[in-house]
Amino acid sequence: MSARAGIVVTGTEVLTGRVQDRNGPWLADRLLELGVELAHITICGDRPSDIEAQLRFLAGEGVDLIITSGGLGPTADDMTVATVAKFCERDLVLDAPLEATIADILKNMMSRSKSWGGADFESVMAANRKQAMVPAGAEILGPVGTAPGVVVPGSAGSLPTVVVLPGPPRELQPMWDKAIRTEAVQLALAGRTEFVQATTRMFGLPESALAETLRDGEARIADFDRLEITTCLRRGELEIVTRYEPDAAPVYDDLLALLRERHSAQLFSVDGALVDDQVAALLAGRTVATAESCTAGMVAARLTDRAGSSDYVAGGVVSYSNQAKMDLLGVDAQLLAAHGAVSEPVAEAMAAGALARFGADTAVAITGIAGPGGGSAEKPVGTVCFSVRLADGPTLTKTLLLPGDRADVRERSTTVAMHLLRQLLSAPGDAD
Amino acid sequence: MSARAGIVVTGTEVLTGRVQDRNGPWLADRLLELGVELAHITICGDRPSDIEAQLRFLAGEGVDLIITSGGLGPTADDMTVATVAKFCERDLVLDAPLEATIADILKNMMSRSKSWGGADFESVMAANRKQAMVPAGAEILGPVGTAPGVVVPGSAGSLPTVVVLPGPPRELQPMWDKAIRTEAVQLALAGRTEFVQATTRMFGLPESALAETLRDGEARIADFDRLEITTCLRRGELEIVTRYEPDAAPVYDDLLALLRERHSAQLFSVDGALVDDQVAALLAGRTVATAESCTAGMVAARLTDRAGSSDYVAGGVVSYSNQAKMDLLGVDAQLLAAHGAVSEPVAEAMAAGALARFGADTAVAITGIAGPGGGSAEKPVGTVCFSVRLADGPTLTKTLLLPGDRADVRERSTTVAMHLLRQLLSAPGDAD
Repeated sequence: MSARAGIVVTGTEVLTGRVQDRNGPWLADRLLELGVELAHITICGDRPSDIEAQLRFLAGEGVDLIITSGGLGPTADDMTVATVAKFCERDLVLDAPLEATIADILKNMMSRSKSWGGADFESVMAANRKQAMVPAGAEILGPVGTAPGVVVPGSAGSLPTVVVLPGPPRELQPMWDKAIRTEAVQLALAGRTEFVQATTRMFGLPESALAETLRDGEARIADFDRLEITTCLRRGELEIVTRYEPDAAPVYDDLLALLRERHSAQLFSVDGALVDDQVAALLAGRTVATAESCTAGMVAARLTDRAGSSDYVAGGVVSYSNQAKMDLLGVDAQLLAAHGAVSEPVAEAMAAGALARFGADTAVAITGIAGPGGGSAEKPVGTVCFSVRLADGPTLTKTLLLPGDRADVRERSTTVAMHLLRQLLSAPGDAD
Repeated sequence: MSARAGIVVTGTEVLTGRVQDRNGPWLADRLLELGVELAHITICGDRPSDIEAQLRFLAGEGVDLIITSGGLGPTADDMTVATVAKFCERDLVLDAPLEATIADILKNMMSRSKSWGGADFESVMAANRKQAMVPAGAEILGPVGTAPGVVVPGSAGSLPTVVVLPGPPRELQPMWDKAIRTEAVQLALAGRTEFVQATTRMFGLPESALAETLRDGEARIADFDRLEITTCLRRGELEIVTRYEPDAAPVYDDLLALLRERHSAQLFSVDGALVDDQVAALLAGRTVATAESCTAGMVAARLTDRAGSSDYVAGGVVSYSNQAKMDLLGVDAQLLAAHGAVSEPVAEAMAAGALARFGADTAVAITGIAGPGGGSAEKPVGTVCFSVRLADGPTLTKTLLLPGDRADVRERSTTVAMHLLRQLLSAPGDAD
């Protein structure tokens, strides 16, 4: 039996969708790693009565641990600590050493920054004194910004342990690492079952085909129900996350063997690695250049996402107009006239141009119709031609009809380009 | 007094953060437009007991309307309709016309697609029959994909009205438009107060300076508390969303006047328009080209986000290496040697190169150190040089030190580039 947890995300800007919550998913991952079962994430605004209602709901559902994010600032609408104290039936008390720590941090900030205007230190300190008020008996998590977090121990059988964390992810994340080492959190999670989590990724397999394989697995593999499998399809990639207790590892191995047997062409990752990780590794020692039309820089941006990419990315051309395809990539005007900008010969010429202009040994080119306009009966919206080319070897050229709206087609094309790069670079001999 | 609503997002992949929920924020916006107050968003996995607990929680909080998303598929773990029926104390009944509609849709899909493998129509139909089971007395929302939604009328004073929608945003969104026109939803929202929502945007103003202005507004503007103001800082842009009842419009006008008085240089939008909207409008009739180093295509991708951008985007160069800056943009080797790749003279030369190579009349160039490596005492990580240049006019060149990690610096640089384009294009005479 797992320990169960709930997450309360506070903040009107998150509730109303103007800021995307990054803490819920991040904490969900950490809980999974710890073998803690996440039952609920609840989101509310800055109203104390709504925060309290959510805390009561989660306690009523019997969770062992509640984690809150947000509402720790100095302003009047930051009410999380006071609300948690009330919920946990504890008084708020001033912690003098914490007050001194916050004063030091503020002095430091004010001396380095000019944006404080005329505010004097004493009035800033008064506003921030509230951040040094903590529930009696709580363990303090030292501030990463100016806002400290707290861990309020639960009482067995009646109240869960509550971990109160700040909203900014850069503050919340290091503070969480401290929180899980506290006695109160360790106690709340005691006796939990450890779980292993493994991620497998496929590209180009329909979800229905995987569903059929999993049904067969259920029939053929002993103890199959010891695997907790969730699948998720995103931009043509199918992610299969499996959770199991360590002694069910042989069952998972049987599942992997079945996936390999049925879908070896589509299975590209069994260790959780993303296609981006694999392409980065394959590009070591090489130089890549891009030539993009409909994706207009998205592939170049994705290739340079990670630190160190300047070792292998030379650059790219966004050739949005035909003129740019000719001038910057040397695509022949007659080729454009004969086949149209969205065609395999033009994609191949763009890739060749990128190789030549950047002196690269690897190039990827994309030209397509992202829509909503520009489609025809022969080449409907979503038609995208790809060409991946190695200076010293083969070329891989493909045309796909991708579903969805403009943003979908552009995103999906970017992912397809990454997979074609992976395919050509991992087995250049077989590709052409 | 507003009507209050709650949103229940179901799906293990959303709860565990592997898929980002887009429905909660989208529905939050729609509710705001309707003047309905959103109290809670709750997220749970596919477990019926957790879904039911959330429905009970929201009903206990006295919401008038609950909207659920997800869990309407044909597979065994799609349990939302059955769970809602139980919660609303209604039997599930087979709707024969709906079953016929779903059969037609499936026949159509199967005849067009090859990915059904050997599945015969009868077995597919049996699996999908469950989608034609609806709570007795519910109003059916015709399927957009294969999954129908339902509206289950509430009973005054005891149960809220529940709108059950599918998970895919492309199905949920048109179905919501149908849902709000049903009698049950109209009844649930009757008597609500209408609210106006206005959005103002600033660029380059610290949040603390805005906070001071708002405190002054509280002191100087009569009925200031009739405005519900939330502010949010994101990548250097400050978004101020104000909600008020229509007769408080003069109070909002006073606030706007105060913002104009204090922050005219930073205020760039009072009608909700994004900088992207403004740049797109300013580029009408022009041709723009990009030259990007650290952002590596992100500005080009952002400029081409919207349909119709091929009218004014010629293309761009991602010049990640120095060689590419020389070969593709004609940046002088001696300039690079004298000032370094991250310098204002090089940014200006890149912009000039983009104008020339693409035959454009507008160019934007970016060169900077996104990190984590590559920084020095003189040019630390986050140093980014921008140059925006018109063929027929002035140039605007700037160096900024941007905060955050690699991803932050790249994102923020992209936003700064958009604002510099806006500034130069809206007042070219003043800029240099």
